Amino acid sequence: MFAEYLEQLRQKKPLIHNITNYVTANDCANLLLACGASPIMADDPAEAAEITALSQGLTINMGTLHQGTIPAMLFAGKKANELGHPVVLDPVGAGASSLRTQTAIRLLQEIRISIVRGNLSEIKTLALGSGTSNGVDACAADQITEESLDVLVPFLQSFAARIGAVVAVTGAIDIVADARHAFCIRNGHPMMRLVTGAGCQLSCLVTAFAAANPEHLLEASASAVCMMGVCGEQAHAQLGQTDGNATYRNRIINAAYRLTPLQLEENANYEMR
Amino acid sequence: MFAEYLEQLRQKKPLIHNITNYVTANDCANLLLACGASPIMADDPAEAAEITALSQGLTINMGTLHQGTIPAMLFAGKKANELGHPVVLDPVGAGASSLRTQTAIRLLQEIRISIVRGNLSEIKTLALGSGTSNGVDACAADQITEESLDVLVPFLQSFAARIGAVVAVTGAIDIVADARHAFCIRNGHPMMRLVTGAGCQLSCLVTAFAAANPEHLLEASASAVCMMGVCGEQAHAQLGQTDGNATYRNRIINAAYRLTPLQLEENANYEMR
Amino acid sequence: MFAEYLEQLRQKKPLIHNITNYVTANDCANLLLACGASPIMADDPAEAAEITALSQGLTINMGTLHQGTIPAMLFAGKKANELGHPVVLDPVGAGASSLRTQTAIRLLQEIRISIVRGNLSEIKTLALGSGTSNGVDACAADQITEESLDVLVPFLQSFAARIGAVVAVTGAIDIVADARHAFCIRNGHPMMRLVTGAGCQLSCLVTAFAAANPEHLLEASASAVCMMGVCGEQAHAQLGQTDGNATYRNRIINAAYRLTPLQLEENANYEMR
Repeated sequence: MFAEYLEQLRQKKPLIHNITNYVTANDCANLLLACGASPIMADDPAEAAEITALSQGLTINMGTLHQGTIPAMLFAGKKANELGHPVVLDPVGAGASSLRTQTAIRLLQEIRISIVRGNLSEIKTLALGSGTSNGVDACAADQITEESLDVLVPFLQSFAARIGAVVAVTGAIDIVADARHAFCIRNGHPMMRLVTGAGCQLSCLVTAFAAANPEHLLEASASAVCMMGVCGEQAHAQLGQTDGNATYRNRIINAAYRLTPLQLEENANYEMR
Repeated sequence: MFAEYLEQLRQKKPLIHNITNYVTANDCANLLLACGASPIMADDPAEAAEITALSQGLTINMGTLHQGTIPAMLFAGKKANELGHPVVLDPVGAGASSLRTQTAIRLLQEIRISIVRGNLSEIKTLALGSGTSNGVDACAADQITEESLDVLVPFLQSFAARIGAVVAVTGAIDIVADARHAFCIRNGHPMMRLVTGAGCQLSCLVTAFAAANPEHLLEASASAVCMMGVCGEQAHAQLGQTDGNATYRNRIINAAYRLTPLQLEENANYEMR
Repeated sequence: MFAEYLEQLRQKKPLIHNITNYVTANDCANLLLACGASPIMADDPAEAAEITALSQGLTINMGTLHQGTIPAMLFAGKKANELGHPVVLDPVGAGASSLRTQTAIRLLQEIRISIVRGNLSEIKTLALGSGTSNGVDACAADQITEESLDVLVPFLQSFAARIGAVVAVTGAIDIVADARHAFCIRNGHPMMRLVTGAGCQLSCLVTAFAAANPEHLLEASASAVCMMGVCGEQAHAQLGQTDGNATYRNRIINAAYRLTPLQLEENANYEMR
């Protein structure tokens, strides 16, 4: 199934509009190119809706949130809704400041978000209206473990049902859920946490899969999460004795460039709940 | 001839002021350092002219255009004109939004641009006042082929004559033209399209060559285009079986760091029309 | 001694708030992750103080200074002062424009800066109220040589005494001084000048060491400067025949990821004055 979604992505080569942060924008763009999509970053309110109209999917990422960019997020999101394009929200740092928490909540209220992709601290902040945060990383208390799956899956499904979106939460185990189904995904490597923007890149990849497979948002999101994890595994296996997180960053993108649909299918490690 | 231009660049080590986008600024800076120049990025209107006055060349790149940055572009451009510094315009995404199209046209009207560097969709938008666009990439209809050269070269020369600038258009074949002469350049590798900002980097390289060789803007621009292409070829030849576009990005900059004037001369592949 | 400071950093994993430039933010984030810290970039005035309150150290970097960000620098700096967090100022390009010079001076006046980290042109500009500049690089006249140490060390100590901060100046030789002591450090490699943002990364590393060792700001700063230099040496030793500054950039971060406290201790090359 996942093979087919990646094939669609490679064939359709969707143009993805990203309103995102300046820390990881370059890696996001290269990852989108690696997977077969085409990136455009544009965050001025004067052009946001027009760029969205030209594209096939929209990523909204709050990594370095600026007040002046929020109208661009709203204009772009509403245009994407109007055109039926998938909209992915990455609420980076929700819970770390009122500006971030309130902006994420406002975006969920004023835009029909297709998929929310974040860590568990961010998602809990959105689901519960407040939360704790360790900056842009999940708190120690917000780890996803085998033991917590039984509680977390229904919690995320209930949040997914309430906002009418797919919820993709990444951590030691990843959960991709809508109101009725959930994928629990065990791909990836812990060292990915030491690559800045691995989450941002994943959010863009989710947008690309969703734009190429708009009828299957849950499965497309799960494909993207598995793909990022498989790339993290393959890249880690290639690290040499003097390599560190900078080389790892490059090798993850390289792996996405090389990954075949068949390899994705064979290496995807998930169960349905 | 090209060897001499690169030698001048390596000797003079010009400081290049870049008003550019946040997606590719890091790669632009490292490429400028690799070729022997020195980069400064500064886009606040309050300091733009002052930074230009300190520099020897100016790049204006619209990759993530913000309305608040346009005055900085104008102040810097006018100061560069006053001081006789070369000004390179990279009209990223002209045709993709009115903001971009109108800003590029305004810059051409209010500043004496020395060199315009873009893809064919962007250049057609500027030459014809409107155009189509696939975001920041050229449209499928706007490819440069052997068959289209006979039409494109005079079209670009006529546009170059009208704006009094060198026009450097990159694609499968690159064309660098002024009102009277044109270089058709066959360096490079198709995989360069999968490195975000390869065009942005080239525009900065054009500025560096122009700043070091201000009496020979056409030839300096052609040298830069050949150099970027030769680096793309050399870097591609070094890719291993697990490498992808992220490693390719690094290797292109490495190649620029290593390239000797003689190697540039020997590997430059062009004809005059 | 330095081993212990790095051990503290790896154990405490401080969250570092960086108000910094878009050119080098990605490398700064990956270097912070490599050394054991956690980065957050946030520069909107509406959230700056809140993010600082969540963090353990603050870096203020003027690399792509925007007028709209200056209030964020002030809010964050004052909050850090209130909470007793170390504040590192990297006055990138002070001397290159009035905006940069005046902003650096204002920050020194309105915030208690713990450590100033810059090149000699920038530090002279701050110490003398005016200076020359070659953009973001030090002027040819502002090199640190064995001969100039006898003059420079007391000059920097006097400036350190006046502003009540540690002053860390990097060049061919690095000097880290407070009012009473000075470390002269001979680690590093000249090729580090060809990696954009090596200085920005160092400033973030200084913040991380200071946040983990707040009782020993002088020694913590010297540890960070030695560590960056040792990483530059190790990374340079690993470069192959086709490598250039892009690969060097990655290898420096890799080296920081790999460096053990013992290796730092053994390879730190300094004398006290």
